[in-house]
Amino acid sequence: MTRICVLILSGACFAAVAFCADGDQALLNQAKQVLGPLPTAMVSEKNPITADKVGLGKMLFYENRISADGTVSCARCHPISLYAADGLRTSIGDSCKAVPRNAPTIFNAASQVGEHWTGSRADVEDQAKEAVTVRVISGMPSYDAVKKGLGKIAGYGPLFEKAFPGDKDPVNIDNYALAVGAFERTLVTPSAFDAFMNGNEAALTDPQKAGLKTFLETGCSGCHSSAYLGGQMYQKFGVAEPYWQYTKSKNIDEGRYEVTKNESDKYVFKVPVLRNVEMTCPYFNDGSVDSLHTAVWIMGKVQLGKNLTDQETGGIVVFLKTLTGEIPEDAIKVPILPPSR
Amino acid sequence: MTRICVLILSGACFAAVAFCADGDQALLNQAKQVLGPLPTAMVSEKNPITADKVGLGKMLFYENRISADGTVSCARCHPISLYAADGLRTSIGDSCKAVPRNAPTIFNAASQVGEHWTGSRADVEDQAKEAVTVRVISGMPSYDAVKKGLGKIAGYGPLFEKAFPGDKDPVNIDNYALAVGAFERTLVTPSAFDAFMNGNEAALTDPQKAGLKTFLETGCSGCHSSAYLGGQMYQKFGVAEPYWQYTKSKNIDEGRYEVTKNESDKYVFKVPVLRNVEMTCPYFNDGSVDSLHTAVWIMGKVQLGKNLTDQETGGIVVFLKTLTGEIPEDAIKVPILPPSR
Repeated sequence: MTRICVLILSGACFAAVAFCADGDQALLNQAKQVLGPLPTAMVSEKNPITADKVGLGKMLFYENRISADGTVSCARCHPISLYAADGLRTSIGDSCKAVPRNAPTIFNAASQVGEHWTGSRADVEDQAKEAVTVRVISGMPSYDAVKKGLGKIAGYGPLFEKAFPGDKDPVNIDNYALAVGAFERTLVTPSAFDAFMNGNEAALTDPQKAGLKTFLETGCSGCHSSAYLGGQMYQKFGVAEPYWQYTKSKNIDEGRYEVTKNESDKYVFKVPVLRNVEMTCPYFNDGSVDSLHTAVWIMGKVQLGKNLTDQETGGIVVFLKTLTGEIPEDAIKVPILPPSR
Repeated sequence: MTRICVLILSGACFAAVAFCADGDQALLNQAKQVLGPLPTAMVSEKNPITADKVGLGKMLFYENRISADGTVSCARCHPISLYAADGLRTSIGDSCKAVPRNAPTIFNAASQVGEHWTGSRADVEDQAKEAVTVRVISGMPSYDAVKKGLGKIAGYGPLFEKAFPGDKDPVNIDNYALAVGAFERTLVTPSAFDAFMNGNEAALTDPQKAGLKTFLETGCSGCHSSAYLGGQMYQKFGVAEPYWQYTKSKNIDEGRYEVTKNESDKYVFKVPVLRNVEMTCPYFNDGSVDSLHTAVWIMGKVQLGKNLTDQETGGIVVFLKTLTGEIPEDAIKVPILPPSR
């Protein structure tokens, strides 16, 4: 290890010794206790990934015609071009209805404790199924209307048959959800951080490694854990102080209380995945903060009760940018949908 | 020629002799008088195509943040997944405002006599420029607001600089329009028909050739001419009979009269491009007809005063499907947009 470091960095290594040789290994070990590299896909026993399901799911992900006003597809609030978020504070759904929260990216999103900011959906399949009929998202009047709508686009029949062999009546809402879910389960975006976690010490620069160390030691990884750096637990937003004192939120969102009606779930949200956070501003449940630097500082303040210095905050941001990953080649390509006739 | 035909079709050739050998050549010559194969791009002296402009233009084509409500990009009404139309009867723009007409595909659209159904836009650059501020499309309050909006997305600055070298203040609405226009000028979709027009007689089947012959001899190509099979002239919709007697249109659209206020332009529309018509239903200016077969029959009735038989109509449809082309490899790929901060 030392030898490689010396070869690459020459004398400079000995001056900035913190992340050479043993320092790197120690940081890697420290990181491995709570974080990890991404898997190649987010598998589920309930919904095994097959090429036919993924292919169909990608088409349905882009399908705007299965919405009440004909303009809403999954891709509307999760456009691949914006790392599967939409850049808005809060999204706008069918017939211009206001979605109450910021659209989280659906990259690296299928291994969470629940979906949505409040965990109101069990998994990506549940989210896909319910979003189609939710009034403020796709607004279809019923599951049956979805089935009928899909049935009108003749080209889908053979694709559902192929993706769900043996199913006598495969064009239905449950298979719709399984197909979209299977596609989403392939959307992992490995980054420089994963190369580091897989043992390539040169994959991160010294400032990035320093940022990771700050991220770990400040306490961020206490909640933003796992390969996804989030998505594994619910947590009160505002442990130390009310969040809205810093976010300047226009409305106070009671979070998971909306789902459980438990007093203890007031202001509780799912800890969001930090993968690609550089690319998915604005931040927080209501998209109230534009700057990643500000968002990190607020997190320190209201979650950890710490007034992070500019250097600490900046260091964490430098690390977070190493989570910007590569979008799977197939997901970059738009599917061609069957015509309506 | 005869020898090749015999080799491929064996004895059958002599039975169905119409499109072998001399028949093919005669049909090709007949077609070449009014139609043609697609060029590799739709060039313009005013807006030379460069890779940097096209790359930027593709990004701007997907840019939803430059719209009043943040949901409208060019790709919303012209999604690549639906052959750059949107599958709706009439489109829905910013803040759910109703666009008055059906969204025409922007594939093979940049060499027309004018843009929009009424020719209200001079060319694709003019269309791109005006669409951003039109209330019912992107709804931005002014050109200046577009400039400011683009300016807020820091990643665009260097891309405009690169695409418009020497321009001291390149982030502006005119360059926006030139970039989007340059991208659209690359969107040609060559098909089996082009292979035939380039001399490969085997590229079309006998029924397809018969359909082409019917298309030419019935009179369709009188208006649907050029390599684009349309887009070269304005024509009254309903030469023989009022169109709305057959389309069941809910509103009577006065067409180009809206632009010119000339009485002679009442019910006049630009003859639409027929490339990829199989993939871009519903049909006509108001999307009032779902079936291509019905649309072709109506055209015969109201434009040519002919009551086409089912066989004639079906033959033309078989030919029209040979115009379904291949989408350029680069256009299939979604661009990654710079984040907002």
